[in-house]
Amino acid sequence: MPSIDLHTALDRIKPVADEKLAEAQARIDSQAKPQGSLGRLEEFARRYVAITGRDNIRRKVVFTFAGDHGVVAEGVSAFPAEVTPQMVLNFIDGGAAINALARHAGAEVIVVDMGVNYDFPPLDGLLQKKVARGTANLAEGPAMSREQAVASLVTGIELAFSCAEDGIDLVGTGDMGIGNTTPSSAILAAFSGLPVEDLTHRGTGIDDAGLARKLSAIRRGLEINRPDSGDPVDVLAKVGGFEIGGIAGLVLGCAAAGLPVVVDGFISTAGALIASELHPSVRDYIFAAHQSVEIGHRHMLQRIGQQPILDLDLRLGEGTGGALAMSLIEGALRAYREIRTFDDAGVSAGGDR
Amino acid sequence: MPSIDLHTALDRIKPVADEKLAEAQARIDSQAKPQGSLGRLEEFARRYVAITGRDNIRRKVVFTFAGDHGVVAEGVSAFPAEVTPQMVLNFIDGGAAINALARHAGAEVIVVDMGVNYDFPPLDGLLQKKVARGTANLAEGPAMSREQAVASLVTGIELAFSCAEDGIDLVGTGDMGIGNTTPSSAILAAFSGLPVEDLTHRGTGIDDAGLARKLSAIRRGLEINRPDSGDPVDVLAKVGGFEIGGIAGLVLGCAAAGLPVVVDGFISTAGALIASELHPSVRDYIFAAHQSVEIGHRHMLQRIGQQPILDLDLRLGEGTGGALAMSLIEGALRAYREIRTFDDAGVSAGGDR
Repeated sequence: MPSIDLHTALDRIKPVADEKLAEAQARIDSQAKPQGSLGRLEEFARRYVAITGRDNIRRKVVFTFAGDHGVVAEGVSAFPAEVTPQMVLNFIDGGAAINALARHAGAEVIVVDMGVNYDFPPLDGLLQKKVARGTANLAEGPAMSREQAVASLVTGIELAFSCAEDGIDLVGTGDMGIGNTTPSSAILAAFSGLPVEDLTHRGTGIDDAGLARKLSAIRRGLEINRPDSGDPVDVLAKVGGFEIGGIAGLVLGCAAAGLPVVVDGFISTAGALIASELHPSVRDYIFAAHQSVEIGHRHMLQRIGQQPILDLDLRLGEGTGGALAMSLIEGALRAYREIRTFDDAGVSAGGDR
Repeated sequence: MPSIDLHTALDRIKPVADEKLAEAQARIDSQAKPQGSLGRLEEFARRYVAITGRDNIRRKVVFTFAGDHGVVAEGVSAFPAEVTPQMVLNFIDGGAAINALARHAGAEVIVVDMGVNYDFPPLDGLLQKKVARGTANLAEGPAMSREQAVASLVTGIELAFSCAEDGIDLVGTGDMGIGNTTPSSAILAAFSGLPVEDLTHRGTGIDDAGLARKLSAIRRGLEINRPDSGDPVDVLAKVGGFEIGGIAGLVLGCAAAGLPVVVDGFISTAGALIASELHPSVRDYIFAAHQSVEIGHRHMLQRIGQQPILDLDLRLGEGTGGALAMSLIEGALRAYREIRTFDDAGVSAGGDR
């Protein structure tokens, strides 16, 4: 894998050029249909073409980052922590939702162990990038050290650059980690300053008592750790997670390597938020896959400045919404390539054009 | 093609059985993921499986119905009427948006001439079912006779029954007809009684003067024709269109033949509304593909009682939104078939289950 440090990656990030966006839109506007009538499909094609300089997708990969969370000791999840490694093995065996939906989208799934509390044997399809066996309990102190936060970011960055080398043109993010809506809400609270209760939801389905424990854990975590909202690495270290750091690095690395990145739901968007706070032009490379059921998600997307592509009441993670959105982006590119122009199709243009 | 009359078709329509829906959901609930976490994908799979008794799709077809409209004489469209036959030929040549998006979804496109003001030669992919060369101007009198309205419905019904014979498991609707947002708004106004200005929008992109002409044409059409909202065939005849009648028949026929039908945007939903008003259980078989930009569309969907699958600011018609939605339904079925159960995957169930 290429070796790139955080500062080098940040230095490489450039906004997507307006001229390239306009050039792609001009082609769309020559096609035999009322101008603008394909709505957001036009946006998807325009942005993809402007970012990559291509009008097709050779390979699509979803990276599902996995990690465990010390904060589960606070009783914040409906599922036991042992489910994290169990689901990693399920991903590797191809039996999970992300496998089914990635097959549907024609995307590969690569699972990245960023910090699962379990020692996996070597397995095809599993990248072993463990920073530690789970984070510390963020309700009692920092989830990880600053060095660990940087290491998790660099792992994601390097994966993005390896995609650029391997002919992967569209990258998706995904997550697995029992308890990881808790750090995601905490990250959003740290950046936004909004009340924790407006950003914290039921995750995989906790009851009222569980939600109260979750709110308490996040409030204590913010109070004890005092993450510095002007220093996104500090936010990641104090109240984040290893898989969230990997996602943040992947998103940042995609922007640096000139790759569009489809960001899945709540946890992935927490990672994308860290990347966007590290460099504002990261936003240009993000496709927000879907609107999650998690109540904090819309605040994250507003801060990033991207509209979700889908709104299907998903709340599973793994990269599932991203896989579905990839297919819509691919459809948009098919329309971009294959719809004839007014001239070629022998169709009369409208009077308002 | 099978010969079925309107009353026979209506007699065959049955609600989708609650037990079948519950049975499909029980399977979904045994899969290794938090219950309900795939949101509307679960609804799509549950309904498809309950309707068809299958968990896969053999063939998918989009029917794009075409017709011309006498009301274009009122200056209600940004495009000249000659575009209707030009676009039909473009569909046959495979160069339009619906062709690109249907190829993306793995669906076939069949174009049906219901009433284009042009005599086509025999062409592969074009079904010649012309009722007349365009409707009469609805602003001055009935768009068509009652016999013509029934004939357009029966064409759609017979197409649905031929799908059932041909191993087509998922049917999509589409439309092409310059001026056809005008009858669509008029149909909605006739059923709902809502003010015409709340239901009438810019179609392919008319300016303010065009919108004023369109509103005036619809108001005069309702005033002169007085369509009977309790008699959907009368509404179709007085202020409808031949392609809208074909769509209404197809939707109704799918319900009668036990096929799920993906209804595209504003014009298709006007057809689906006529079908739903003819028999309330038609609604059970409808998948609403997307939320159109047309302001009347949400009123139609509320009346039908289905939520749109996508919201991508589309306003093209042809069946484009339907093709995209078909792919999401297929993804939902892939998840239904391929996600392992908690037991098979060796994953611990959550405490709240």
